[in-house]
Amino acid sequence: MLKSTNETVLHCYPGLVALVTAKHEGVQNIMAAGWHSYISYDPPIYGVAIAEERFTHHLVEGSKGYAINFVPAEYAHYIERSGKLTGKDGDKFREIGAEWIEGDVVSAPILKDAYVAYECEVIDINTYGDHDWIVGNIRKFHQDKSKFNESGLPDFEKLQLPLYLGRSNYLIADTTTTLKKIDMKK
Amino acid sequence: MLKSTNETVLHCYPGLVALVTAKHEGVQNIMAAGWHSYISYDPPIYGVAIAEERFTHHLVEGSKGYAINFVPAEYAHYIERSGKLTGKDGDKFREIGAEWIEGDVVSAPILKDAYVAYECEVIDINTYGDHDWIVGNIRKFHQDKSKFNESGLPDFEKLQLPLYLGRSNYLIADTTTTLKKIDMKK
Repeated sequence: MLKSTNETVLHCYPGLVALVTAKHEGVQNIMAAGWHSYISYDPPIYGVAIAEERFTHHLVEGSKGYAINFVPAEYAHYIERSGKLTGKDGDKFREIGAEWIEGDVVSAPILKDAYVAYECEVIDINTYGDHDWIVGNIRKFHQDKSKFNESGLPDFEKLQLPLYLGRSNYLIADTTTTLKKIDMKK
Repeated sequence: MLKSTNETVLHCYPGLVALVTAKHEGVQNIMAAGWHSYISYDPPIYGVAIAEERFTHHLVEGSKGYAINFVPAEYAHYIERSGKLTGKDGDKFREIGAEWIEGDVVSAPILKDAYVAYECEVIDINTYGDHDWIVGNIRKFHQDKSKFNESGLPDFEKLQLPLYLGRSNYLIADTTTTLKKIDMKK
């Protein structure tokens, strides 16, 4: 039974976790962000919530750039490691074991194991409560098209998606996941 | 193989669809929004992308309020109907078949069939590209606690979640979905 309450309900999952990377003055970092969203299709714009105290935050602010990386389920441990280690202690990419390449347009690193990544240039940062909502124009896209079918949907034979549920639990979208076409009928 | 491209890659799914409701001067509407995110935990703040030309947009702007509703898979047809019908033609709630109650704090209707809903008061609206990113303080939460287990995660015996994939396809998170606890090890 639906009941109203003043107790904070944090329902944002299951959903994709964005691995956010940034680089400034030779220093780079990666963090896991659960709160992120597409904002505009044309021009393409992506937003992500990053708390001001995060090490990645000042790299994004300083360089005015960041990348959003999505990894397949087999690399979901990058998400857990990104969440538990801090870039203040050294080269987080090496500790996590994630290989990367330079972005084409933006200095932020792109994960080689990502199936989709966006290079973003910051256009706005607003503080709302305990996070900053960072908005960026997507200047370049990266995609492993071999993992998608002709209609643009993931091919679950080739790509399993880790959907964060909470408390280190993930739903894995794969070929066994219930898939339904839903129309206007009940 | 990950390749860079200038072609827009719209990867934001699978994910929860927010049914956004609003009411202004006696007129109310409901729409389906795929682009939405939590922004702050304390204070609780939620954001959603709504294009300026949407009928719901002026209700949100006028009333300075909206509600975010999440429905179980058995009501996923509300999402499809909300997406395909327009409020400009009359009472969309009746056409969709969705029952609602008045919000406690904000005038926006709350769907009786939702398992979680947030009543939000607008604090900021920014135009980014082809959508407005609307940010609101969550003033009241609604939850059907009977559908969640003690650790706060959904109980898939009681609650199946419709995760929009694209083209009216939904992954349904249920008891058969692969569930993994992922730690720092590969």
